[in-house]
Amino acid sequence: MSEPGLSLAERLEGGVRVGPNLTLTRNPERQSGDPAALAAILDEALVAHVAFVRRGWPVALPFFHAVGDLRDGHGPQLLLHGSPAAGLFEQAGSNGVDVAVCVSLLDGLVFARSTFGSSAHYRSAVIYGRARLVAPDLLPAALGFLVDHITPGRRQEVRPPLGQEVKKTAVLALGLTQATVKLAQSYQGESPDDGEDRGVWAGVVPLALRADQPRPSPETQNPEQIPPSVRALVERLNR
Amino acid sequence: MSEPGLSLAERLEGGVRVGPNLTLTRNPERQSGDPAALAAILDEALVAHVAFVRRGWPVALPFFHAVGDLRDGHGPQLLLHGSPAAGLFEQAGSNGVDVAVCVSLLDGLVFARSTFGSSAHYRSAVIYGRARLVAPDLLPAALGFLVDHITPGRRQEVRPPLGQEVKKTAVLALGLTQATVKLAQSYQGESPDDGEDRGVWAGVVPLALRADQPRPSPETQNPEQIPPSVRALVERLNR
Repeated sequence: MSEPGLSLAERLEGGVRVGPNLTLTRNPERQSGDPAALAAILDEALVAHVAFVRRGWPVALPFFHAVGDLRDGHGPQLLLHGSPAAGLFEQAGSNGVDVAVCVSLLDGLVFARSTFGSSAHYRSAVIYGRARLVAPDLLPAALGFLVDHITPGRRQEVRPPLGQEVKKTAVLALGLTQATVKLAQSYQGESPDDGEDRGVWAGVVPLALRADQPRPSPETQNPEQIPPSVRALVERLNR
Repeated sequence: MSEPGLSLAERLEGGVRVGPNLTLTRNPERQSGDPAALAAILDEALVAHVAFVRRGWPVALPFFHAVGDLRDGHGPQLLLHGSPAAGLFEQAGSNGVDVAVCVSLLDGLVFARSTFGSSAHYRSAVIYGRARLVAPDLLPAALGFLVDHITPGRRQEVRPPLGQEVKKTAVLALGLTQATVKLAQSYQGESPDDGEDRGVWAGVVPLALRADQPRPSPETQNPEQIPPSVRALVERLNR
């Protein structure tokens, strides 16, 4: 985040509204009002799935995202990376586009002694609101947040973006004030109708997105010299 | 699949329609009309993100999915697992609900010598159409496909579902005839505006969802005896 010493969770404290349409009807005990949980999900996930309505029909597409404060008075916002020519970004135009952004992390598969009792450990967030195109003068800052979200330090290892590259990029910004966060992280315990036979194995298979060994491009002169930003990414994912 | 010797890809051959609204405007060279690519994505992914429209507003939520032929004359369909009480399933009612289902796999992060040239290796599919609730008499078969999708063999290790459990479950079925598939899997090669300095490392960090060591539940009597279905899942993910 751009303001040292103040985490996203602290900035969102009290600012995440769970309105009447955003209350979970299913498993409401899994709903979290903790801004830190929302911040952690957005921080850890690499991909966001964006739903919007095009000519009355639902559409869902994957995007890279980040959270950043563009210093435009809106505080920390969810940023979505795209192109001016992409449908969602064209549709945003000057008035913005209503979206629902789902960011989910599948942390494990839960195997009970019945298929009905089997489930998943996950953390998911859905952020609702009107996403608006980031103004051209704020695009470099927005792109900085997007690069830093995945690979902090990479920006300092490569040349700065060219003006023509920034012009070919578009970013949507969405407030983080309307969101639902759902957490299922603990083993629910054996239930009586789970089958009497405790000899049947039950438990959890933990899951995580992991990195394999980086593969240098053909023209890279020093293929063994994996830069600090990429090494840190691999270590973070494989921790 | 339920018909031995005929893969989903073969069943879909020629049956996946890419209509005028489903043509990619961005990077159309990445669009695939290969039913095998769609089948592989649906097979490998564990989670689907479903977009729908509720009172005019977009919603996106994660669901477990599978592909299965319910022998109801519709051929292989995309199945989405839920509860009769969940909003999407209530909304489906007797007429169905229009959805866009996005299934994406992030296979790697591509680091060019510019942030603009950096991208991702991914495979993503979006299936469009009207999803309908599976009739009660077909629910057991649908649930079988859903369990088998994640963990083939698990059904045979646990007791069969109870009638009351099936009643608490709902499944939506969606034809696989309208879909877009997008693939970005090869390193795009060094581009001239990628920075002249070939000493800067460029390459790919491969990514995959991996399983950690299974953790038995507290009441499992033989915690070390991980069953064949769970072992096969772990091996499949960590291959």
